[in-house]
Amino acid sequence: MADEALFEFLHMEVVSYLFKTADEEKCIPILENMGYRVGHSLAERFTKDSSRFKDELDIMKFICKDFWTSVYKKQVDNLRTNHQYLAFPCGLIRGALANLGISCIVTAEVQNMPACKFQIMIQRSQ
Amino acid sequence: MADEALFEFLHMEVVSYLFKTADEEKCIPILENMGYRVGHSLAERFTKDSSRFKDELDIMKFICKDFWTSVYKKQVDNLRTNHQYLAFPCGLIRGALANLGISCIVTAEVQNMPACKFQIMIQRSQ
Repeated sequence: MADEALFEFLHMEVVSYLFKTADEEKCIPILENMGYRVGHSLAERFTKDSSRFKDELDIMKFICKDFWTSVYKKQVDNLRTNHQYLAFPCGLIRGALANLGISCIVTAEVQNMPACKFQIMIQRSQ
Repeated sequence: MADEALFEFLHMEVVSYLFKTADEEKCIPILENMGYRVGHSLAERFTKDSSRFKDELDIMKFICKDFWTSVYKKQVDNLRTNHQYLAFPCGLIRGALANLGISCIVTAEVQNMPACKFQIMIQRSQ
């Protein structure tokens, strides 16, 4: 719980710092990119002792279940369901999947508060 | 462990982003200030159900023992014992103490790796 709060508070500070200092249209990509790099490193760490995933479905299950719940523990709360606060988790998922060999675009959309839906579009190499 | 890694990786990204984009002499104060605000909020959360502290010594014990160990769990590792990485924890301590009514200056110094010594100078109102 302490760690969780530590991450949440730092995340809020980063969002607020960026929106104060960077051009507004750059903030979301910067946050998404930070999320990407963090997700990439986390996936590396989480899977270092796991056996190889069977296929994409197996990877997706890992991301939705183990990865997400160990990172966030609970549902994203409604304070953070706006685009400022969704850029980082989108990047986090994209980075984790990249580390596991899946190249994708991740977007988030809020239909019914406080739930949030992430959409993952897998990019297949031609 | 997942949360811990999440915080650590985000912290590394923030440090690296700042040193890439902000003037070098501003990075340390920015990080210290983020730490301050995070520490302030954390102290608020950690103590909301505690009884009032008896005196300064009591507060210091709380910071050194409960607060620090619930935040960092372990000693700061040697990858982070340089000034870039110490600004945030210095601010964190300063913010937590400010929340508990103690105004101070916190500095850090590395004498024997990987240990790091924090010095807290309490500022008494005249």
